[in-house]
Amino acid sequence: MKNSIGREIPEKIVGYDKFKCYCSPFIKEPVGRKASPKLRQVKPGDKKVVNSLEEAIKKAGLKDGMTISFHHHFRNGDYIINMVMDKIAEMGIKDITIAPSSLTTVHETLVEHVKSGVISGIYTSGVRGKLAEEISKGIMEKPIIIRSHGGRARAIEAGEIHIDVAFLGVPSCDEYGNASGKGAKTICGSLGYAKVDAKYADTVVLITDDLVCYPNFPASISQTDVDYVVVVDSIGDPNGIASGATRYTKNPKELLIAKYASKVIVNSGYFKEGFSFQTGSGGSSLAVTRFLKEIMKDRGIKAKFALGGITKPMVELYEEGLIEHLFDTQTFDLVSCESIFQNPNHHEIDASMYANPHNKGSFVNKLDVVILSALEIDTSFNVNVITGSDGVIRGASGGHSDTAAGSKMSIIVAPLIRGRIPTVVDNVNTVVTPGETVDVLVTDRGIAINPKRKDLMENLKNKGLPIVTIEELRDMALKIAGKPKPIEYTDKVVGVVEYRDGSIIDVIRQIK
Amino acid sequence: MKNSIGREIPEKIVGYDKFKCYCSPFIKEPVGRKASPKLRQVKPGDKKVVNSLEEAIKKAGLKDGMTISFHHHFRNGDYIINMVMDKIAEMGIKDITIAPSSLTTVHETLVEHVKSGVISGIYTSGVRGKLAEEISKGIMEKPIIIRSHGGRARAIEAGEIHIDVAFLGVPSCDEYGNASGKGAKTICGSLGYAKVDAKYADTVVLITDDLVCYPNFPASISQTDVDYVVVVDSIGDPNGIASGATRYTKNPKELLIAKYASKVIVNSGYFKEGFSFQTGSGGSSLAVTRFLKEIMKDRGIKAKFALGGITKPMVELYEEGLIEHLFDTQTFDLVSCESIFQNPNHHEIDASMYANPHNKGSFVNKLDVVILSALEIDTSFNVNVITGSDGVIRGASGGHSDTAAGSKMSIIVAPLIRGRIPTVVDNVNTVVTPGETVDVLVTDRGIAINPKRKDLMENLKNKGLPIVTIEELRDMALKIAGKPKPIEYTDKVVGVVEYRDGSIIDVIRQIK
Repeated sequence: MKNSIGREIPEKIVGYDKFKCYCSPFIKEPVGRKASPKLRQVKPGDKKVVNSLEEAIKKAGLKDGMTISFHHHFRNGDYIINMVMDKIAEMGIKDITIAPSSLTTVHETLVEHVKSGVISGIYTSGVRGKLAEEISKGIMEKPIIIRSHGGRARAIEAGEIHIDVAFLGVPSCDEYGNASGKGAKTICGSLGYAKVDAKYADTVVLITDDLVCYPNFPASISQTDVDYVVVVDSIGDPNGIASGATRYTKNPKELLIAKYASKVIVNSGYFKEGFSFQTGSGGSSLAVTRFLKEIMKDRGIKAKFALGGITKPMVELYEEGLIEHLFDTQTFDLVSCESIFQNPNHHEIDASMYANPHNKGSFVNKLDVVILSALEIDTSFNVNVITGSDGVIRGASGGHSDTAAGSKMSIIVAPLIRGRIPTVVDNVNTVVTPGETVDVLVTDRGIAINPKRKDLMENLKNKGLPIVTIEELRDMALKIAGKPKPIEYTDKVVGVVEYRDGSIIDVIRQIK
Repeated sequence: MKNSIGREIPEKIVGYDKFKCYCSPFIKEPVGRKASPKLRQVKPGDKKVVNSLEEAIKKAGLKDGMTISFHHHFRNGDYIINMVMDKIAEMGIKDITIAPSSLTTVHETLVEHVKSGVISGIYTSGVRGKLAEEISKGIMEKPIIIRSHGGRARAIEAGEIHIDVAFLGVPSCDEYGNASGKGAKTICGSLGYAKVDAKYADTVVLITDDLVCYPNFPASISQTDVDYVVVVDSIGDPNGIASGATRYTKNPKELLIAKYASKVIVNSGYFKEGFSFQTGSGGSSLAVTRFLKEIMKDRGIKAKFALGGITKPMVELYEEGLIEHLFDTQTFDLVSCESIFQNPNHHEIDASMYANPHNKGSFVNKLDVVILSALEIDTSFNVNVITGSDGVIRGASGGHSDTAAGSKMSIIVAPLIRGRIPTVVDNVNTVVTPGETVDVLVTDRGIAINPKRKDLMENLKNKGLPIVTIEELRDMALKIAGKPKPIEYTDKVVGVVEYRDGSIIDVIRQIK
């Protein structure tokens, strides 16, 4: 069976029911009502702080076969997932599905819990390192399910991910569960992913290393949603959570790509007073933000808002009055963390507000321009951000497909060749973002515009930009790097890539 | 059939199913899951602003028999309810249940819509004026249902009030539905009641007279919950929405009561660093806040938070550093409206966070002291705030029973005699707040402590306070005012008073 973009989807996938193949970006309508958590009464005088993580797990009634969730605001500094899974394993609970908003290399110890049957299912935006390799080699019986940030929020609200217990690490929290991304030991800024889990999980357990006086306000997570509070020595490594210094790229390829991308934006027709954009945290992306700043200053143009993962260059634009609002689901560095707690128009938003396609209008719908990266892009403009050139999982879906679909212009920035591997190919290993939502590809060797965007072709011609077809870029790449050896896969599906609307856009197969 | 406080409840009430009699404040546990609205996808480019109220009503799919909701943040300045009901009547839609958070005298025109069958059901916190009189005289077939502010939020979250369409007036709003209590023409501060409706209604229609540029942030109501936006000439009369000047009472009785109440608080054992309180907007209550201020300054005591309807005296305490946080469901005057948009620790909270007994811990649970009014109080400390001495509905349940139940000490302030009518009686006309949640009654003629609060009796003795028994207060009142003629009622139930947990604490009968 092939979906509308020609990806081969098996008729049956172990452990993945009632699926629907991807057809087109907005065709799948939501049905029914939002999911909702169990009602529970907390009476005056009831206590939420428990003595240990073990006590919280017991009180939460965690049992074999349940689904638990986590957030990835602590990135590579996260101690929570490993801590909770170790305790669950120690308590003899098995067959758990974990539904973190994402996983990073720090979570490689989960391999043992997969092997021992403690973890039997994984829903995530991405996974890297040893755990990802083992998954690609087929360690799990059921495939993992990859969802975008908006897709995860949608799946939770639609009841497709039912969270029995959410274990949410929080930099500070009071005895009644009012929690913030600012603490004495750690600071992570926005708790945008965690906010969704707190609203929909049947039981919410907060884990903190900074228990503060009541009331801990402003709060990202509210007392009205929290069941238990656990105090531990440390929830994470501050250095892994928010980077102190944003490194600006000196890589000439990345700078050239950023220069081209800025020029594309400026000439696209969208660069005008009150525009909006999202850039992200990659080398070229950060450089685009800095280049835009200069052009905005020169031309006296201000942006209404910037969206997404917020970084220091965006905060600088805000503080110079060049961006009116920052909408923040995830705060990447210390400067941005300080900003969100100080700057009145640096707003925390949850992942549903950010990118859920099935609510009454998320922020990505209002986005003019987004800059996105790619591991590979094919001649139909389909983008892979999840599997490497060896077919092994090594990335994350993130907000990629969400912003590509929502924005008026999505720009993919990528070097034409990485190492000896071409970026532009006939067919990507894995599609995360469908080409019909991708408008421009900017490489160091040329710029390709999606042929369906005649308007952009018109706006961008004769602007001194090296515009070529995507086939020409593919040919250039092929000529330089040669044709890579095809990856050998078995038939076993190790990962299902859901499009943001819940349809299957692709599957990831086991590598041989 | 009698409930646990001896109120006669009929076995059957027309139009009111599956009811349960009140038993005790925290015995009724919530069951099942939270209610939830229909899922709906708003795609990039979709428009929410419609040309007229009529178009919004049509697009919302409003039909005979449905339930619609409103908020009462515009108080006596509200134009929305009458405007919407007139239009619905004009469109020929009938048999509508209205579920405003409350009704005031300005809504007397609804009488015509009740008579014509456009309105067949009313759920509200209170009702006054001509509409209240007509209801008491039996104009409606089904009884109205009176709920507290926390009880309404609970009923919505439990699915007992299913809102088909919420019509929410908002002082400002952008094209995508981000709405605020601050507008060019009107300002109402917190939208705490409306926030609940926006989260749970199947369709949310915002009505504004100040359509502003996107994004209207910070927003009390989010774009992700809003279906349609209607722009009208005027949503309300600013003078009726927020009073410009807070009038301080010069009434010697009220000042004496306030003096006593302040002394009760100061000597209760709860008056210490970090205490919390709610006072409200009555004459004595405002005076209590001012008296407390002086004592707090003298003794160097600061409050952690003040809660509820926020008034100028509370803002003054906040601004002088005597209160750390203000938690605001409803903003009563212009000074407070300005404060909520300026002061970082003046926080908007929704009605569920404020007082819902069936979430995971509302703010009333953390309240030390609350000052409340009464129309009548009986020798079991049961309080009536809904019917007058003639049996006619003339008040509102408000947060009365919520704060009485949640707080550590609830103080009722009332003159012993009003006009020629005793306040302390053997049996109140209607019970809104059960005596077991009322701790102290302060009148101008003496103070009665609920006998179950031996601790308070101990703390308050020998403090120069005129402490008597509640029976002595009743006797005093009787001696001065004489025994009032009993009110004559028919058997018809015109109002059901729900306790905050959804059980029936009393019914209101038709007056003869």
